[in-house]
Amino acid sequence: MLLIGAAAYRGTHGEFFAIDPRTGEKLEPAYGLGGVEDVARAAELAEAAFDVYRETPLETRAALLDTIADGLDEIGEQIVARVGVETGIPAARATGELARTTYQLRLFASVVRDGDFLGVRVDPALPDRAPLPRPDIRRRLVPLGPVAVFAASNFPLAFSVAGGDTAAALAAGAPVVVKAHSSHPGTSELVGRVVQAAVAKHGLPEGVFSMLFGSGREVGIALVTDPRIRAVGFTGSRSGGLALVAAAAARPEPIPVYAEMSSINPVLVLPGALRNRGAEIGRGLVGSMTVGQGQLCTSPGLVITLDGPGVDALGDAAGAALRPVPAAPMLSPGIQRAFTDGVGRLRDAPGVTLVAQGQDDPALAAGGRAVLFRTTKAQLDANPLLTEEVFGASSLIVTAASVAELHEIVRDLEGQLTVTVHADAEDLDLARALLPLLERKAGRIIVNGWPTGVEVGHAMVHGGPFPATSDARTTSVGTAAIERFLRPVAYQNLPAELLPAGLDDANTLGVPRRTDGR
Amino acid sequence: MLLIGAAAYRGTHGEFFAIDPRTGEKLEPAYGLGGVEDVARAAELAEAAFDVYRETPLETRAALLDTIADGLDEIGEQIVARVGVETGIPAARATGELARTTYQLRLFASVVRDGDFLGVRVDPALPDRAPLPRPDIRRRLVPLGPVAVFAASNFPLAFSVAGGDTAAALAAGAPVVVKAHSSHPGTSELVGRVVQAAVAKHGLPEGVFSMLFGSGREVGIALVTDPRIRAVGFTGSRSGGLALVAAAAARPEPIPVYAEMSSINPVLVLPGALRNRGAEIGRGLVGSMTVGQGQLCTSPGLVITLDGPGVDALGDAAGAALRPVPAAPMLSPGIQRAFTDGVGRLRDAPGVTLVAQGQDDPALAAGGRAVLFRTTKAQLDANPLLTEEVFGASSLIVTAASVAELHEIVRDLEGQLTVTVHADAEDLDLARALLPLLERKAGRIIVNGWPTGVEVGHAMVHGGPFPATSDARTTSVGTAAIERFLRPVAYQNLPAELLPAGLDDANTLGVPRRTDGR
Repeated sequence: MLLIGAAAYRGTHGEFFAIDPRTGEKLEPAYGLGGVEDVARAAELAEAAFDVYRETPLETRAALLDTIADGLDEIGEQIVARVGVETGIPAARATGELARTTYQLRLFASVVRDGDFLGVRVDPALPDRAPLPRPDIRRRLVPLGPVAVFAASNFPLAFSVAGGDTAAALAAGAPVVVKAHSSHPGTSELVGRVVQAAVAKHGLPEGVFSMLFGSGREVGIALVTDPRIRAVGFTGSRSGGLALVAAAAARPEPIPVYAEMSSINPVLVLPGALRNRGAEIGRGLVGSMTVGQGQLCTSPGLVITLDGPGVDALGDAAGAALRPVPAAPMLSPGIQRAFTDGVGRLRDAPGVTLVAQGQDDPALAAGGRAVLFRTTKAQLDANPLLTEEVFGASSLIVTAASVAELHEIVRDLEGQLTVTVHADAEDLDLARALLPLLERKAGRIIVNGWPTGVEVGHAMVHGGPFPATSDARTTSVGTAAIERFLRPVAYQNLPAELLPAGLDDANTLGVPRRTDGR
Repeated sequence: MLLIGAAAYRGTHGEFFAIDPRTGEKLEPAYGLGGVEDVARAAELAEAAFDVYRETPLETRAALLDTIADGLDEIGEQIVARVGVETGIPAARATGELARTTYQLRLFASVVRDGDFLGVRVDPALPDRAPLPRPDIRRRLVPLGPVAVFAASNFPLAFSVAGGDTAAALAAGAPVVVKAHSSHPGTSELVGRVVQAAVAKHGLPEGVFSMLFGSGREVGIALVTDPRIRAVGFTGSRSGGLALVAAAAARPEPIPVYAEMSSINPVLVLPGALRNRGAEIGRGLVGSMTVGQGQLCTSPGLVITLDGPGVDALGDAAGAALRPVPAAPMLSPGIQRAFTDGVGRLRDAPGVTLVAQGQDDPALAAGGRAVLFRTTKAQLDANPLLTEEVFGASSLIVTAASVAELHEIVRDLEGQLTVTVHADAEDLDLARALLPLLERKAGRIIVNGWPTGVEVGHAMVHGGPFPATSDARTTSVGTAAIERFLRPVAYQNLPAELLPAGLDDANTLGVPRRTDGR
């Protein structure tokens, strides 16, 4: 069903089914695809809801987020089961992802209640200032307007219908129109109905939330170019993200697009760490690269280290850990095909050797077989395709002949979500020298750990320079994600009767404020 | 002279002169235009300076800003005199603008010393958390990289070489390459040399600041597309701004452009205010629209009110105030020609009547004659050109036949820097009903005042929806302007030896921090 405001109806632009990636079988029921008229209706309702929703009491908005979280918990088992058949994600992981999703919603509820996100600043009038009096100026952040959210395939809960983008936008006071991902339509509808019911329960305008299915080229572009949509959140492929960025920039009035697109999450193993614990690092690499069949935005796809005996220890240990890893279903047949192509590209590239492969399982319809390759900096220089993202459990060890070469490899990398450094005590000077470069390459720097596992907190940055994202100034995970959907407005000499909530002298909302910069 | 790092030399791509807009005469000396090789050299030096400059102690960075302010004060008389001959801005206004410029620099010095702009957040490790321990995550904001600043013509000090964009970027830790405006090259060089000397005095890398002259199409685009430039600040025309936005978006790695472009700063006069003090508002309008010959970004170019006898009182009083206003030199012959064209377009438009004109002065080479027109909503609907910005002292009164029409006029406006409302007690309900719409249209809302006069403070928003600016999420005036040049980076499990300044357990920098969101 398409969920457009309070309505639920079947789209009339063709039908599609979810596919069980374990068996390749179509899953009932059939879903109807929406068209541009559904986009227009959702955008119209969102626009109609905007002025009311953005001025709802903070407590109402927070309660909406809590109610969504509670509703997801209530049908948790049903959700986890449907996630399983639609994506092949095992119940334990789906349960964890559901917990992450509800935690995220409740965390944003607390952000709304706190009120600091309103960014209130008050510069009181100075009537006696010379040569000119200073007027009274008060500022707050207001939501940009209705937000389009493009759900991701790889986190059918945490980056989907009621995921981080939706939670952040609703918290900011922005109505949301979700373009659901066609790989998990049943999960999307279960979650979407929970949101729809929560909107109704709190007596909010129906347009606060809509969700539809549709083709990226038609429905997706219609959504991004609808004049009532004022910002876009997206998690997905580089080509998909860039298409939305271009469409948004070509609007008569351009809007921001927050697209999280592509990252190979390089892991640097510095000489001391390589020498002291190469085998341990090799085992850790396999653990990280195979989480979720490598289908995480932060999966480590590139290991950079110095040539020498330590690399063999690392590779041997990684190979030993990788070989018994069972094949597992990938998220969808399409993703499995792209993975197979990407792995083939690496296997056939000159100067790239196979370190090890995981188990194969021909019984799986869309099974993924983990794989680790090795090459040298010289090969990397000759073949830039080697550093293109292969979405899935594939990683490539690159050896540099010297510290200078190691620097060069990092320097030539594109922007990343994360970069990881394994460094022991004797590596600290080198790590310190690398740090400024790493800061320019990534949104998050991890030392002696692994990039997979993204904490939902206040200090998290899940973002990074292009092409990791289309806007390095933001994060799509954690409480700072709310800032993406806000803009400042200053109010000069407004009489008390007109001042928006939070800006009055008495601060009746009790929100944190900065007065004269303090 | 071009000031490229520590060097000063004459550009070799043709020469140009400033022109005294009062006499039309060329002013000595001749200036040399730079070319793409000068852009490349400045960008190279800026890139080389970046990693050092961004990690200078906050006190050093603040002292740099203070030293620039002191240096400008020291040669204040010389600067004011040169501003006068190059732009026709009278000494009193130039002196005020200089004071605003040095205030701005010193204010950003205080922002740097305070350290809150670093946006430090610490989420400490929770080793005992179940099911998984939480890693230690700390975040700060780092500068985007070298910033290109395009100086404006209308504020030869406050929005020019050491103006708001430069002060904010230097405060953020970003080296700056200024493309100076060719209408005030002597002023630019005086100011640029002060900045250059301050960089040297504090022993900072020479690339922290460069300044060059050059054509927008060649040098400007070369600057925006140089891979080492990571953000752009611009104040100027809509066509100029859009060209830079397009060039930045077409880079292999796109970068943010903060372009302040175009605003007609509508003034709404609500029925009660019109009835009670129409004449006073008419006089106030003339006062505001003629400040700086109307060559301010916030000059009120459109007055929206209800038809009726009050409008005549407003128009009569405005006319009486306008007629004796003497002609005055505009900033440059080019701006004067564009103003004459714009005024002609309004004068010749069907259904537009002339309310009054200021004095003419044929002796002035580039004199501007203030002018006020009147029309109706019906005419506005028929001719969208009527709401295009006319840069200079021109304003247009538009009458609506009803409150509904008044709403429609506002609804159909493009994005603005400011919107002003004149409202008396009986207008408060109407004003309240309009407020949500006004918030969507502008970055600053003024009640019972005038948009000209932009306070430099913490709560100021000098920004607004497209096409007022290319990025409504920001301000180019006030302390929040620093945010434009920063991006967040998270550090996960860094050993104490690697933690950047401000993130250590002891908070040795003493910067404000948010721990676990508090």
